[in-house]
Amino acid sequence: MSLFGADIHTLDDLFVHGLKTIYYAERQIAETLPKMIEMATNPELRAGFEQHLRETENQRVRLEQVFRQHGVEAGETTCPAIDGIIKAANATAADIDDKQVLDAALAFGAQMVEHYEIAQYGTLIAWARELGRNDCAAVLDENLAEEKATDEKLTQLAEARVNRAAGLQTA
Amino acid sequence: MSLFGADIHTLDDLFVHGLKTIYYAERQIAETLPKMIEMATNPELRAGFEQHLRETENQRVRLEQVFRQHGVEAGETTCPAIDGIIKAANATAADIDDKQVLDAALAFGAQMVEHYEIAQYGTLIAWARELGRNDCAAVLDENLAEEKATDEKLTQLAEARVNRAAGLQTA
Repeated sequence: MSLFGADIHTLDDLFVHGLKTIYYAERQIAETLPKMIEMATNPELRAGFEQHLRETENQRVRLEQVFRQHGVEAGETTCPAIDGIIKAANATAADIDDKQVLDAALAFGAQMVEHYEIAQYGTLIAWARELGRNDCAAVLDENLAEEKATDEKLTQLAEARVNRAAGLQTA
Repeated sequence: MSLFGADIHTLDDLFVHGLKTIYYAERQIAETLPKMIEMATNPELRAGFEQHLRETENQRVRLEQVFRQHGVEAGETTCPAIDGIIKAANATAADIDDKQVLDAALAFGAQMVEHYEIAQYGTLIAWARELGRNDCAAVLDENLAEEKATDEKLTQLAEARVNRAAGLQTA
């Protein structure tokens, strides 16, 4: 509870809190992806991160649309969860001295981010529907669909190429 | 990179690092669930958290089996990602003054934890297979299946009961 008492009284308050959280997270992700692109060696992995970066920027714009639809000003709330996920990925990457193994770790870090976003958007959509905001739910669903597609693509790429290359390094 | 140089040179090293990370995370989750059970009002949500706690303890035992199969000593590596997820859930819960809205936030926090675990186990299974450790992959797959089932149950419970109750509070 804040020093001045609780700020969240209703599901609507919780929904807006969640919107501000993912709006903050998408910016953190947009700032982290260029570093991941720079560290990645596999060209398909780099291309995947580049596509994710473009999607992330577009997702911020969609979130601004949801804020408008719901009649609240766009804003950010710091989220220790995404901060921790990015910190963990950086710490692991810094502890690796092989490029192919680093690619495997980067693909994993990206999937962890995707799952964070899938959980956030999935819940926000359910809350929006409960609040009778099917218009907001529809826009959020576009972001969720992109995150799920990216996660699926990362899984295929990791299993078909990146992990194989990292495994060969150990032989 | 650590002060004394990188510690992860091969996919095998990365796999063991991941095992130690999720072994740490499962303990953090086991320590957090009793507090979530105490905070929850909806009896089905409480029962779901109680079941998840029993599963978490069993998953730690399965991880110990995987360490043995792979011939390394069980150990923990601090994970800023799970620490951040738990910190975010606690901060949000502390900012809510309505029991039904708190239930909706707790269900969301639990789903965020599930998605963290799904991402971890999914990747560890792929790495185990790449390393020719199908025995480890099979045990890890038991944990993954439980996490996915719990996530699915939480989604159903949130959408059918918890969010509805929280939404009525706003009416």
